[in-house]
Amino acid sequence: MLIAGIDAGSTKTKAVVYDCDGRLIGEGVSGPGNPHDLGLSQAKKNVTDALLQGSKGARVDFAVIGFAGMDTAEDEVTFSRFFSDVAVRTESVHDSVIALFSETFGEPGIVVIAGTGSVVVGYDGKTFRRIGGRGWLLSDEGSSYWISVNLLRWMQQVFDGLEEGGELFDFMRVKMNVSVHDDLVRWAYDNQCMKDRIASLAAYLDEAAERGIEKAKDFLRLGATILAERAKVMMRRVNVRTVVPKGSLFKSRTYYRAFKEEIERAGGTILDRGNPPELGALYLAAKRAGCQKVVEAIRRARTR
Amino acid sequence: MLIAGIDAGSTKTKAVVYDCDGRLIGEGVSGPGNPHDLGLSQAKKNVTDALLQGSKGARVDFAVIGFAGMDTAEDEVTFSRFFSDVAVRTESVHDSVIALFSETFGEPGIVVIAGTGSVVVGYDGKTFRRIGGRGWLLSDEGSSYWISVNLLRWMQQVFDGLEEGGELFDFMRVKMNVSVHDDLVRWAYDNQCMKDRIASLAAYLDEAAERGIEKAKDFLRLGATILAERAKVMMRRVNVRTVVPKGSLFKSRTYYRAFKEEIERAGGTILDRGNPPELGALYLAAKRAGCQKVVEAIRRARTR
Repeated sequence: MLIAGIDAGSTKTKAVVYDCDGRLIGEGVSGPGNPHDLGLSQAKKNVTDALLQGSKGARVDFAVIGFAGMDTAEDEVTFSRFFSDVAVRTESVHDSVIALFSETFGEPGIVVIAGTGSVVVGYDGKTFRRIGGRGWLLSDEGSSYWISVNLLRWMQQVFDGLEEGGELFDFMRVKMNVSVHDDLVRWAYDNQCMKDRIASLAAYLDEAAERGIEKAKDFLRLGATILAERAKVMMRRVNVRTVVPKGSLFKSRTYYRAFKEEIERAGGTILDRGNPPELGALYLAAKRAGCQKVVEAIRRARTR
Repeated sequence: MLIAGIDAGSTKTKAVVYDCDGRLIGEGVSGPGNPHDLGLSQAKKNVTDALLQGSKGARVDFAVIGFAGMDTAEDEVTFSRFFSDVAVRTESVHDSVIALFSETFGEPGIVVIAGTGSVVVGYDGKTFRRIGGRGWLLSDEGSSYWISVNLLRWMQQVFDGLEEGGELFDFMRVKMNVSVHDDLVRWAYDNQCMKDRIASLAAYLDEAAERGIEKAKDFLRLGATILAERAKVMMRRVNVRTVVPKGSLFKSRTYYRAFKEEIERAGGTILDRGNPPELGALYLAAKRAGCQKVVEAIRRARTR
């Protein structure tokens, strides 16, 4: 019997396949797996590709898929139905669930995801509760996109003479190839429908922070703090202290440190072994399929 | 000799035509005239339609067109060239210029436009200076869209249990037909590319404010205050005290009062006779063409 864990993310899909005796069969990687970005059919093709790579072409008995973009009850129904025949039995879950379980292995915890968007999900051992995670227009506080928009609006205010520019302003103008005010306007609206491109400015901010530019650190810290505040609300709500940070923005040392400090000041503990999300999906699949040897193998390998 | 003033706005185009002796020839109205929304050709068709209606089909000798969406130096060059043959001689200007001159008739002043977007433009008698006016992503502080996004994000936070809902929340849910959280998410993203539709929530806020719901007044007042702050910066910058409020949002009594109070507290004077923007364009055309009788006719009719 084969079981699989799949992370259908916004930039790529990753799958890991085991047999029920705890042996790794293989891993697979393919294109994005977010049905909202790609359409259901193309997402399914990418998910299937990654899965078949991992299983060396064999049919998998139980697969758990964690989806980026599973944001409404309607999505849950649609995705679950559409992806049901990817394996003999398939379960579709929110990507925060697999991100959390990749670190806690079924134990209660709070996962905070900060990538292009942001979300805080708490699990008390029974139910999952969420704060945010509803996209750029409604609730992306502390995310790369949110931080980048703050940066863009600040640059606009510098051009308008409402704010002081200084080192960060000069740094960003070089990075973005913005010489006059109109260049900034063009940059912003040429990229308005590409959330990822705008969000990528956060990486420049981190580069500036690493060079010691304080204003860049401020932008990153503000994002980390606002998201930590939400994590703290969740800590009280589910009565759990373990916090798992996930997502590309936590690769920024400035951001990570500011977040960690806030959480620890509130009595929380950061849990971050760097396990990939598909491992959380695999853990869930193993539990559901009753493959205890896989559960133990994962715990042994990944909690050291 | 015929002269014309044209307001090429985002929702409609209006033209007014006079002969040089100060006689009204006619007025015309057609569809939107913002080249960014429509493409240059369709915008030109609408501008031409409104103008020919106003001139009863005769060729106009001098026309001034105020454009919504003339936001960069590139726009100025493109629009000026493309619309140059609408009349024998044509001048294209930013819509804030004609909005200002429709009230000050060439005198120094500051015009504050609060519609879907927002902008502050100051004129010291020689040059025009601008704060904001670079669209929803960079600088729409205090506009209908900005206020509406604040409202949407607040509603999201109420659903997330981070904010108290109360009367305004109930009011908006009925207006927007939002019963559960997912409905809000759907509403937001179904309308994400329709700035006007999101901005229209500000009208509901005003309705709620008129019913005495304090939280609705807070959202409107915050917008008015932030824009008044920018007007105050401009007052110092161009050393002018006359402030002309324009745009649909000023129809909200709550918004208007909050704005007026802030300006007057800073020693400014509100000038608002309710003159239409095309009158400012006509004034400019009359000045440029040397039609002094038209200039006098406008002043007489519109400064009472």
